Amino acid sequence: MTTRHPLAVGLLGTGRMGSFHAETLAHRLPGVRLAALADPVPGAARRLGDRLGCSKATTDVGEVLDDPDIDAVVIVTPARTHAGLVEAAARAGKAVYCEKPMAVTLAEADRAIAAAGKAGVPLQVGFNRRYDTGFRAAHDKIAAGDIGTPQLLRSLTRDPKLADPARVPPWTIFLETLIHDFDTLRFLNPGAEAVEIFAMADALVRPDFKEQGLLDTALVTVRFDNGAIATAEASFQAVYGYDVRGEVFGSAGMLTMGDIRSTHLTAYGPGGATAECVTYDQDLFHDAYVAELADFADRVRTGRPPAVTGEDARAALSIALAAIESITTGAPVRTGDLERL
Amino acid sequence: MTTRHPLAVGLLGTGRMGSFHAETLAHRLPGVRLAALADPVPGAARRLGDRLGCSKATTDVGEVLDDPDIDAVVIVTPARTHAGLVEAAARAGKAVYCEKPMAVTLAEADRAIAAAGKAGVPLQVGFNRRYDTGFRAAHDKIAAGDIGTPQLLRSLTRDPKLADPARVPPWTIFLETLIHDFDTLRFLNPGAEAVEIFAMADALVRPDFKEQGLLDTALVTVRFDNGAIATAEASFQAVYGYDVRGEVFGSAGMLTMGDIRSTHLTAYGPGGATAECVTYDQDLFHDAYVAELADFADRVRTGRPPAVTGEDARAALSIALAAIESITTGAPVRTGDLERL
Amino acid sequence: MTTRHPLAVGLLGTGRMGSFHAETLAHRLPGVRLAALADPVPGAARRLGDRLGCSKATTDVGEVLDDPDIDAVVIVTPARTHAGLVEAAARAGKAVYCEKPMAVTLAEADRAIAAAGKAGVPLQVGFNRRYDTGFRAAHDKIAAGDIGTPQLLRSLTRDPKLADPARVPPWTIFLETLIHDFDTLRFLNPGAEAVEIFAMADALVRPDFKEQGLLDTALVTVRFDNGAIATAEASFQAVYGYDVRGEVFGSAGMLTMGDIRSTHLTAYGPGGATAECVTYDQDLFHDAYVAELADFADRVRTGRPPAVTGEDARAALSIALAAIESITTGAPVRTGDLERL
Amino acid sequence: MTTRHPLAVGLLGTGRMGSFHAETLAHRLPGVRLAALADPVPGAARRLGDRLGCSKATTDVGEVLDDPDIDAVVIVTPARTHAGLVEAAARAGKAVYCEKPMAVTLAEADRAIAAAGKAGVPLQVGFNRRYDTGFRAAHDKIAAGDIGTPQLLRSLTRDPKLADPARVPPWTIFLETLIHDFDTLRFLNPGAEAVEIFAMADALVRPDFKEQGLLDTALVTVRFDNGAIATAEASFQAVYGYDVRGEVFGSAGMLTMGDIRSTHLTAYGPGGATAECVTYDQDLFHDAYVAELADFADRVRTGRPPAVTGEDARAALSIALAAIESITTGAPVRTGDLERL
Repeated sequence: MTTRHPLAVGLLGTGRMGSFHAETLAHRLPGVRLAALADPVPGAARRLGDRLGCSKATTDVGEVLDDPDIDAVVIVTPARTHAGLVEAAARAGKAVYCEKPMAVTLAEADRAIAAAGKAGVPLQVGFNRRYDTGFRAAHDKIAAGDIGTPQLLRSLTRDPKLADPARVPPWTIFLETLIHDFDTLRFLNPGAEAVEIFAMADALVRPDFKEQGLLDTALVTVRFDNGAIATAEASFQAVYGYDVRGEVFGSAGMLTMGDIRSTHLTAYGPGGATAECVTYDQDLFHDAYVAELADFADRVRTGRPPAVTGEDARAALSIALAAIESITTGAPVRTGDLERL
Repeated sequence: MTTRHPLAVGLLGTGRMGSFHAETLAHRLPGVRLAALADPVPGAARRLGDRLGCSKATTDVGEVLDDPDIDAVVIVTPARTHAGLVEAAARAGKAVYCEKPMAVTLAEADRAIAAAGKAGVPLQVGFNRRYDTGFRAAHDKIAAGDIGTPQLLRSLTRDPKLADPARVPPWTIFLETLIHDFDTLRFLNPGAEAVEIFAMADALVRPDFKEQGLLDTALVTVRFDNGAIATAEASFQAVYGYDVRGEVFGSAGMLTMGDIRSTHLTAYGPGGATAECVTYDQDLFHDAYVAELADFADRVRTGRPPAVTGEDARAALSIALAAIESITTGAPVRTGDLERL
Repeated sequence: MTTRHPLAVGLLGTGRMGSFHAETLAHRLPGVRLAALADPVPGAARRLGDRLGCSKATTDVGEVLDDPDIDAVVIVTPARTHAGLVEAAARAGKAVYCEKPMAVTLAEADRAIAAAGKAGVPLQVGFNRRYDTGFRAAHDKIAAGDIGTPQLLRSLTRDPKLADPARVPPWTIFLETLIHDFDTLRFLNPGAEAVEIFAMADALVRPDFKEQGLLDTALVTVRFDNGAIATAEASFQAVYGYDVRGEVFGSAGMLTMGDIRSTHLTAYGPGGATAECVTYDQDLFHDAYVAELADFADRVRTGRPPAVTGEDARAALSIALAAIESITTGAPVRTGDLERL
Repeated sequence: MTTRHPLAVGLLGTGRMGSFHAETLAHRLPGVRLAALADPVPGAARRLGDRLGCSKATTDVGEVLDDPDIDAVVIVTPARTHAGLVEAAARAGKAVYCEKPMAVTLAEADRAIAAAGKAGVPLQVGFNRRYDTGFRAAHDKIAAGDIGTPQLLRSLTRDPKLADPARVPPWTIFLETLIHDFDTLRFLNPGAEAVEIFAMADALVRPDFKEQGLLDTALVTVRFDNGAIATAEASFQAVYGYDVRGEVFGSAGMLTMGDIRSTHLTAYGPGGATAECVTYDQDLFHDAYVAELADFADRVRTGRPPAVTGEDARAALSIALAAIESITTGAPVRTGDLERL
């Protein structure tokens, strides 16, 4: 593909996360230009475009994909539309950055990967922990052998608040929340792949929505092919904040990651010593969100391959689907069996 | 039973932990007298008695149990002898303090509980986390409703070093190490009982001993009847120290427990900020070990019932046996099924 | 003054800190345009301009001040040139942002303040702690009365490395390093002013430079007119990193600020638990550096008065000069006496 | 002197601290026997003796000093009586443990030291920080050169609550509170001595008692003969707990000491992450209080010299008196001048 300077990026989906990425593309990345916005909600792209000084705003995704002046697209639409848009964007010859999850079935994932491969365009997936300084430093130490062979791992994601349970699709906790943790476990256990998965989940935050299939609390155990045993844990409602942490215990040491304090201020009073906590993902991962787009843009411009691939997205999805199968059957699931389903 | 002042206590088993408890009985507890020591190893009880000023020392446990001047016995012998000694001591009319695990089969546990019940003697079990100030404060807050209903729990035990794998009986990681965590999970989820258990385990520290049945790394998932989902995790070798931690996430808050720093000193140098870690259980739980015996003695003297009962020991054992069954079958196990085995 | 959209800013001084501010003006601030660069070192402004896409680059400050298209100037030249440039820029009708210290004598400070007042231009001074989230949150809590009346305060600055002692002017530790801490103490003790100062200082890092007047270690005690007693402390060489911390003890509580860990990663090994430290001011205060220029630009555009004023700069300078006088005389100095010198 | 086994110890002064030490002597120290109690308050010694099983209890200190069966005395009476009792006990041939401050004038201190020297009895002083594991580990690292040469030091003591200001003698904050910090600074700067002292103090907790000479807040700056500059800081009222911390910054690193959390439990809720604080000195220094008496007893029995000497007490007193002189004169004081007063 050819790339110009600055890189012209079209963004698809102008919701909460899409707006943040759009601001990043508009203001925070030297060498990048926010060139177009698309959102099917009438007026949404236009309003954001006005605020960010982006004149091309449309309700039609096709207009962005067909625009020859656009080098790359960033996909921040609802999860179930991701894979199709990746395919379409790849066919249109755009470099593709897709928010997680890239796909919600293995077949979809395979088609998206194949489309990017056939078109020869880079495809990067938005697993933000990989761009957080703490998680990244942990990965680097593990890859360098600093803690020996990983034996026990933990990754957890607890969102601050379940807004409207009626709007949460079934299996969201696995496909959209824990997908981060499944990727994190792979990132922190470099080169290893999951072989066996067992999951427990329940509707503990909103038991009244369990019949509609909403699971809001989940714990997934994963065995990797290097022997390591891991847990991924999620809750849709942590009253104290937005809680993302990790731990890797190895034969030669341990690493812990995650700090939910919002500042380095500690207040001491009759009730003890108190530090306030982060309650918003765009605070906790602000720098990571910027870094992942910066890295994507840089790799597109310099022709280096993407750092987080479609194959990474597929591997995390595979664990998520195995977890869902485990919930359905009440038994542990081997990833090999899943492929044969 | 009648008790005198000071309480005369006989100790059975003078190994590493027995010696510590003997010192506590001899020196650290007002109102308690170390009255006898028994250990089948020739000379072991005698040497410890000489050091602690306890003149009655024997290789024959029966001599202690038959001594009418002894009010209570503290059992610190190898795990597989515990239940039988509890029975014998109860029949001899002694108040009984038994180190964990109280038993290694449910039938044994039932007999020990029945014997104490029939004799009308108090029976307390040595789950030391319950006497650690942090874990205890957590329990109290949870019982008071401070964090709402527990939803996700974690307890872990990592020993600093696997000394001689050849001397570790099969299933030790469940019956002797994780038994602490199973009790801790029950302690931190007051009133709830385990209903479903799934376990993964492996020989990652010493793969060469896996054929002899040694498992040195384990992760157990437990579902409780109040919906809470928990993990218990253990490793026989943490190179950085003796690591015991807990976490309870509830509908109204979270509690974390465990601090492996050995002092409040932090050293800053070119490599960063470093705090040294505890590498020895008798340092980490020094005060808890003393407190549990002090509480036992106090309850015996004042006629209050024991704080950690034979039933508690049985419930933790039940989880351990379910975990073993899960490892054997590769499937989740319901505690109800276990009772029917 | 009139301001356009975007705000056109000229930057004076393209050293290490100037380059950072220039990047911020060029890339990180929506609504701001880096319009000109000046530095007397031949080629310096040009090279930076080429990198940042700023075509106006000169060795002559006058060219920037005389340019009617420039709305504001940011002064990042050597300390001893600051006050004169503030005067000149104010006379030229530019909004002025001046790095600390704004002046090195009270007379200079008075002239700079008067020039800005006469020209009716905003004058803001670069005390970055005021834009750090932790220090700012502390200030807000104190101003809200959360810890009652401040009684004991501490602010410290320890630089990671003394590069070339031969290039450090006399009294730098007071005029350029501790000036931050003097301002921080005022910021954290809102409404109070210093009344008595006593200082001890020495050349402990480089004793061989003491004869040239270099002091590299200093401790200053300050009594405020609300009774609070404070210390400001500095060293030119902390081998473990860039260490900036604060503490305010009040009648109703205490606040501590400052965290020199570079990430939230902690590594556990046989030597203990280690967190790496920040070794670079532009890491520790990255966000604060950006926030202070963003706030300046926003205030200029919206016509709100600057948040950190020339009077603030003068008050901190007054404490610094009293500390120097205290070192010279070996006695405590009252700020009132200083004004009469 | 001759010592028996167990060491027979008489305790003088049965107030709050005296009662704690008496319990330690009665129950916590193998090889030590609480042999006598004296307190001028009618019934006080008797009541404590009944509780601790010590039959010899008297209102007459002389009865204890004259008892040939007593090996050692522990002096826990009001500060102003210490030096006289040390002298008397030494003349009676007893090993002496004296709570801080050993004396409140240099002349008194000299007489006490001389008396012990003439009698050939050990004299140990109760500076408890020296027996706290964190402060001791810091000392050991510093003495081993781990942080190079100390350059900046800090020690602080904040009591949780000023009970009855009317009962606090003048200069108490220097002679009884900060005396700990002066000793700590010497302990953490091994081999160095104070040469110049400057103090600021005020009545900020209870301004209404300032006219009676009560100072409740103080900051003392100390220059040592190795160039190090130190602060000692105290307040009589910290609403959040009992706060004792230290910091030593050296040419090759930094050490921080002090942790006021009461357990390792952290509670997370909507208000943030909270750890409760210690509010009682006998909690914070429980183990140190026991360790200092254990070490004293052990040294007496084995004939090793005491670890904290009369000379140490005199040196800390010298700094306290210089601080008082500095408050009185408003000027810095050199310790050499003080000796000539």
